[in-house]
Amino acid sequence: MENITLDRCCIHTITTKPWSLPQAVENYAAMGIKGISVWQNATEGIGPHRAGEIIREAGLEIVSYVRGGFFTHTGSAGRAQAIENNKKLLEEAAALGASMLVLVCGASPGQSLETSRQQIKEGITAILPLAEKLKVKLAIEPLHPMYAADRSAINTLAQANDMAEHFNSPFVGIAVDVYHLWWDGNLEGEIARCGANGNLFAYHVCDWKVNTIDMLNDRGLMGEGCINLKQIRSWVENTGFKGFCEVEIFSNIHWAKDQHLFLEEVVEAFVSKV
Amino acid sequence: MENITLDRCCIHTITTKPWSLPQAVENYAAMGIKGISVWQNATEGIGPHRAGEIIREAGLEIVSYVRGGFFTHTGSAGRAQAIENNKKLLEEAAALGASMLVLVCGASPGQSLETSRQQIKEGITAILPLAEKLKVKLAIEPLHPMYAADRSAINTLAQANDMAEHFNSPFVGIAVDVYHLWWDGNLEGEIARCGANGNLFAYHVCDWKVNTIDMLNDRGLMGEGCINLKQIRSWVENTGFKGFCEVEIFSNIHWAKDQHLFLEEVVEAFVSKV
Repeated sequence: MENITLDRCCIHTITTKPWSLPQAVENYAAMGIKGISVWQNATEGIGPHRAGEIIREAGLEIVSYVRGGFFTHTGSAGRAQAIENNKKLLEEAAALGASMLVLVCGASPGQSLETSRQQIKEGITAILPLAEKLKVKLAIEPLHPMYAADRSAINTLAQANDMAEHFNSPFVGIAVDVYHLWWDGNLEGEIARCGANGNLFAYHVCDWKVNTIDMLNDRGLMGEGCINLKQIRSWVENTGFKGFCEVEIFSNIHWAKDQHLFLEEVVEAFVSKV
Repeated sequence: MENITLDRCCIHTITTKPWSLPQAVENYAAMGIKGISVWQNATEGIGPHRAGEIIREAGLEIVSYVRGGFFTHTGSAGRAQAIENNKKLLEEAAALGASMLVLVCGASPGQSLETSRQQIKEGITAILPLAEKLKVKLAIEPLHPMYAADRSAINTLAQANDMAEHFNSPFVGIAVDVYHLWWDGNLEGEIARCGANGNLFAYHVCDWKVNTIDMLNDRGLMGEGCINLKQIRSWVENTGFKGFCEVEIFSNIHWAKDQHLFLEEVVEAFVSKV
């Protein structure tokens, strides 16, 4: 497997959470990074339109806007509100100049995962016309089964493939994140299926630490954990995927560091481990 | 779904970890509980033979001895040692009078999950003749994907079914634990498959708390979480399973309580929520 170059490196703003968007943009660009995925919180106080200008002025490409979804609720009013919120996020993505919105689809204690998946389907159906109009693609992100209680009822790539294939639209696809999917014995086949159906929209990398101490914010830098990143990238690229590899790390440990030093570690890990 | 009676209640000694084995036995029996699964640590200082006598004298049935497995190692010496350890555990199970040894099969950072699964297969192959001789069944327990790094390379019931069917032996089957498997969209079908092939050896219950704060020791009492226990039990019983429902809770929170009060909660939750 050939090493990857920085030309294909995208970083999620959440990865360097302590930085403001202008700081992140300046430092990413200075390191030779070409892509950025923008979390909603990073545009606060700037607004999506100006955020987009700042990013383009620095020569970075906007890969995705993060994150919509959370379609599930035990009450219908909550589901209607979620749809409105997702429409707002699509407008923000368009104002930013992002061509993709990542969806963390939701799960709600008190109802079955099957019911939640039905609500997710209804939610995507409701926002798809606006996504098409704005030309913003929707990327369903399957989440690790440890988030099945309240974050996502879509926990395997097989389930995400089922959902994307149901829509059979160029505006509905999937974000494959190694953190959520690395353990799956069917991953190679499901990645191939995802690509063959035109649904492989995005590829996210980080690592799974052997002694994970926090279920949300203890992701590893690539190389710190046990995921065979080069093998999974080879499966992704075997589908013809040539897009960005997006670094998305939530980590109390890494956020506590000097972010300039951390960014150097990210770049080093990207070119050697991804 | 009819409520379940205490006749089918088995408790794992680890659930009331602060108690010694004699304390656990006395209190379980006093509450009308009929079954006990014995963790290895509970026999320390007593020995498995005497432990078995204490349990039978109190009128409790020994359901399983917990836990063998951990067959995977990057080095062959480690794998050979694991096999010897499992043989010792089988002898202890026989001395105790347990007819089943639960296997947490192992995973090792530094090798693929596929390699680990091959080593698990080799490990079970190596100990199966002794298991048959001693008439101690081996119950493969698939573990939640969040334990795939270092505890188990068998993370779904489908994988456990594949493994058990490979052996096609009355002495190799599966322990189905709701904590590890509740999220799986294929669970109903895989439980049916497990039962149809004669591999459903054991059924473990607890609950998945929505805000789990510790990946090992924050399991919920039945009813504290989001698992649809009655639905899963119906799937298990649809296969003809009439065995014990084993309460296995690791919880720093529950262990910190007065264990008499906790046992009352367990009994109440068992008859109303399982």
